[in-house]
Amino acid sequence: MYRSHTCGELRITDVNKEVILAGWVQTIRNLGGLSFIDLRDRYGITQIAFNIESNPALCEKARTCGREFVIQIHGKVCERSSKNLSRPTGDIEIIASQLSILNASKVPPFTIEDESDGGEDIRMKYRYLDIRRNPVKVKIMFRHQVALHTRKYLSSLDFLEIETPYLIKSTPEGARDFVVPSRMNQGQWYALPQSPQTFKQILMVGGMDKYFQIVRCFRDEDLRADRQPEFTQIDCEMAFVNQEDILNTFEGLIKYLFNEILHIDLDAFPRITYDEAMENYGNDKPDLRFDMKFVDLEGLRGKGFQVIDSAEYIRGFVVKEIETKFTNKEINELTEWVKRPQIGAKGLMYIKFTNEGIKSSISKFYSEEDLTTIGSSIDAKTGDVVLILTGSKNSVLKQLSELRLEVARRNNLIPENVFKPLWVIDFPLHEWNEEDQRFFAMHHPFTSPLPDDLHKMKSSDRSTIESIRAAAYDLVLNGTELGGGSIRIHDRELQARNFELLGFTKEEAEHQFGFILGAFEYGAPPHGGIAFGLDRVCSVMQGSTTIRDYIAFPKNNMGRDTMIDAPSSIDEKQLKELGII
Amino acid sequence: MYRSHTCGELRITDVNKEVILAGWVQTIRNLGGLSFIDLRDRYGITQIAFNIESNPALCEKARTCGREFVIQIHGKVCERSSKNLSRPTGDIEIIASQLSILNASKVPPFTIEDESDGGEDIRMKYRYLDIRRNPVKVKIMFRHQVALHTRKYLSSLDFLEIETPYLIKSTPEGARDFVVPSRMNQGQWYALPQSPQTFKQILMVGGMDKYFQIVRCFRDEDLRADRQPEFTQIDCEMAFVNQEDILNTFEGLIKYLFNEILHIDLDAFPRITYDEAMENYGNDKPDLRFDMKFVDLEGLRGKGFQVIDSAEYIRGFVVKEIETKFTNKEINELTEWVKRPQIGAKGLMYIKFTNEGIKSSISKFYSEEDLTTIGSSIDAKTGDVVLILTGSKNSVLKQLSELRLEVARRNNLIPENVFKPLWVIDFPLHEWNEEDQRFFAMHHPFTSPLPDDLHKMKSSDRSTIESIRAAAYDLVLNGTELGGGSIRIHDRELQARNFELLGFTKEEAEHQFGFILGAFEYGAPPHGGIAFGLDRVCSVMQGSTTIRDYIAFPKNNMGRDTMIDAPSSIDEKQLKELGII
Repeated sequence: MYRSHTCGELRITDVNKEVILAGWVQTIRNLGGLSFIDLRDRYGITQIAFNIESNPALCEKARTCGREFVIQIHGKVCERSSKNLSRPTGDIEIIASQLSILNASKVPPFTIEDESDGGEDIRMKYRYLDIRRNPVKVKIMFRHQVALHTRKYLSSLDFLEIETPYLIKSTPEGARDFVVPSRMNQGQWYALPQSPQTFKQILMVGGMDKYFQIVRCFRDEDLRADRQPEFTQIDCEMAFVNQEDILNTFEGLIKYLFNEILHIDLDAFPRITYDEAMENYGNDKPDLRFDMKFVDLEGLRGKGFQVIDSAEYIRGFVVKEIETKFTNKEINELTEWVKRPQIGAKGLMYIKFTNEGIKSSISKFYSEEDLTTIGSSIDAKTGDVVLILTGSKNSVLKQLSELRLEVARRNNLIPENVFKPLWVIDFPLHEWNEEDQRFFAMHHPFTSPLPDDLHKMKSSDRSTIESIRAAAYDLVLNGTELGGGSIRIHDRELQARNFELLGFTKEEAEHQFGFILGAFEYGAPPHGGIAFGLDRVCSVMQGSTTIRDYIAFPKNNMGRDTMIDAPSSIDEKQLKELGII
Repeated sequence: MYRSHTCGELRITDVNKEVILAGWVQTIRNLGGLSFIDLRDRYGITQIAFNIESNPALCEKARTCGREFVIQIHGKVCERSSKNLSRPTGDIEIIASQLSILNASKVPPFTIEDESDGGEDIRMKYRYLDIRRNPVKVKIMFRHQVALHTRKYLSSLDFLEIETPYLIKSTPEGARDFVVPSRMNQGQWYALPQSPQTFKQILMVGGMDKYFQIVRCFRDEDLRADRQPEFTQIDCEMAFVNQEDILNTFEGLIKYLFNEILHIDLDAFPRITYDEAMENYGNDKPDLRFDMKFVDLEGLRGKGFQVIDSAEYIRGFVVKEIETKFTNKEINELTEWVKRPQIGAKGLMYIKFTNEGIKSSISKFYSEEDLTTIGSSIDAKTGDVVLILTGSKNSVLKQLSELRLEVARRNNLIPENVFKPLWVIDFPLHEWNEEDQRFFAMHHPFTSPLPDDLHKMKSSDRSTIESIRAAAYDLVLNGTELGGGSIRIHDRELQARNFELLGFTKEEAEHQFGFILGAFEYGAPPHGGIAFGLDRVCSVMQGSTTIRDYIAFPKNNMGRDTMIDAPSSIDEKQLKELGII
């Protein structure tokens, strides 16, 4: 061992101990006859002191060390005269008696500090330096805790972690696959899994009953911000269960993680249906840390205001006790904001309930009494402001959802360190796609309809099929979808019918999913499951808005790893062996 | 929940409880007025009883169930009149009051029994049925335990599990890579990692200090028996450590696994050098469950026997107390066995020490006194047999190693349930390859020489370079290599020199490993690590000779998954998007 203690370990109770530390030079300060090195490792920072009078050669040697040099120190723990209260080791320092330079370092291209001067690109290229920074390091350590506790919890419930293959078969349904040419079977390709969905179902057919896996998944999609071509899922499946069992088991997992890691007790998770979520928040992953549920403003109709009277749908929400902050400037800005093409509203109406009476963009068409009536119907009080959008139902819900979040952000209505989980249930089974003129599975093609809607699976009427609800559920926390799953179909005929509804020919279904249809003929038990995005669970638990720093070696939005410079050209010999050229 | 208890759970103390069970029909037996179903799930088998007189409809329904039907039973726990002592639930049965058929099953293509009538191919195609069999199921469950306890142990020592990317860069050194075309960067390719070697070293440079990962690795090799194109490693790395620290830490891991899972205490692992292993066992992974260490028989020289006198090398081993079993027939068979081309010996000499004196294939050239002297020099006693080979040193060691194992196998000299771990250390750093006329790294190009041999790295003399020992070590258990590792180079100049010795041009080294050479310029700490084959750890712990059943979905030796039929052709559209056609 190059050290007797870490740089985060020594305390006042260790005074007079002879110790050996090793780590990186964070800073070096020369103050007349004294030099100080702040020595850093994964565990913390400890101050090392050198005295030019008592040991001139050693002090001179220390002064040759630059930032990020790797050194080893022998010395004695002493109490500091001026203590550093912001640091756990701040009561002590090491009076060095020996110094070995284990490795030198060039001057790093950015500062290894919490607030670095390095931009994203250079930090990614030198990720090994970036990882030394505290904000990145703690996120990677946090991820380890989340994975470890997930395994503990699930194992304690008799779940088995079972590894499924990474070299599998391409199934074009869903996102685009990454594919891998086979050298031994030329002209044929493996695909990397978008998820182990079919394998975990096969494990249920195989009697494994409670499965999980923390597993890499791959999607070759054009990368939006904060999407990675490879990402990690907590993937779970259970047999002989219904939806209720799954919700309870995995609500338990999230509560356990919050309790064990953050020491936070979460209350029972409310459940709302997909329809309720859409009607109330315009969104299937509502952020419940703040209110502003949508309110019905159909009561505005019939007063001769053309915009309202001709609208398909009229909804808004009440912002409580905000009136004094909602100046005309603020309202104008919000109006411009909703009119941007990304949102696409035609305009924004408001009603302010002020101490001096009602002020509104639509007061020309409504009497104060009209507006007072409307106000009391939606429980708006003095000090409150109502924001209103009109248009088609879908666009109003979408626009109002965005506006709700924007108003909350602009006015700091989102409390910090508050966690509001919920289950969204009863999703539609299928979504009609106008462009392709076919249905797509909202969750995936293996999702079971709710028992009450099973009879509709035989229908050939589009609106009947659109109304089929799925036994599918999402776990949403603070406006982020942490995970989602469903009860699966376990009946061969029903599965075949679902493929048919999704536009598969019999041959296509057989070619792509023959093995699972076959498996359903040999005693498939009722089963269902869920998958969580590990990166997302970590980031939401820490209140972070980005997942990138929870990944040790992320790729940029061109799918490149700029540190190792991948992807890259490969040898012609390799391509020839694969039969590609 | 479809059940109140599992099929492995109920005992005599549960008698009179109303329970619900669900599972698969293992067998159905009709005995006059009674029918019995053995109901199976992951946890065990419970007998269900139906009485034609007390509930004729239910009994008739039960009789419609075939093998592997999935059923749910309501009933009462009763004491059995004839108990089944071989089964934990054998004291009780369930008198059924309700039966639901949850799913039917076709007749399975092979029996779901410990000894199945299905061959390897059909069991792989219907792997979901194969997994229901006890011998496969317990292996997959065992693997979960090994992975879980590995994580517990390493986490308790402050190791962090950190995920490294699967889409990386191709590095032709070593085995052949699987490669993945990039759609967003056409003409460029990712590679799947053969191991996370460079990333774990980068994590050490990043200050992560104690890393592990249970991680999939990929090698596109022609598959020998029991090799898989994808396999799982317990991959570990530590900074600020020397070889001793690593051996102690991971000896601790193996001891922990044996203790926690098998309740076996292993003694301290002996350490022998590579040279000792080769001289004594002709093998760098000696099986120490039995003795038969090689003995020096150079003393046979000089008696005028041409075969001996002209041989480069004369070695053998003593088989204790075996003489009566070593008939001429047995000796002749062994002689034929070593003369097969796979072994390639010219012949086999023996000396038997019997109650009636010495019998030997070479007695024509040696007096009884000569052979007695030789016998006592190698501690051969009455009842023992010495087997002797001659030839070049390399071939004698190799042939004698095979012979030692074969003799042990044929004569049941390998005790069961005995575990003999050891460390093999001081491997050569490089191996000369005649065909390519260059050195290859014996472990990998990042392995450090032993400090004592560091000065030889500057040499250009081939035999000097061949004599460089590496700080590399293997953990061997019962003749199987469980894992291996090394202290790494952390100095840029030394790493560059090693690439040079391995025949890389500066440009090649820079192109393939520039990022790690670069990282070494920014404060790389001393570091080293080890990796274990998870499948192999599992199989050796259970005394199994094959890894295949520890893998839920293995591939055959053409790299095919016959269950899902992968690899397979993919859509032309996919190839076009990738720019392949």
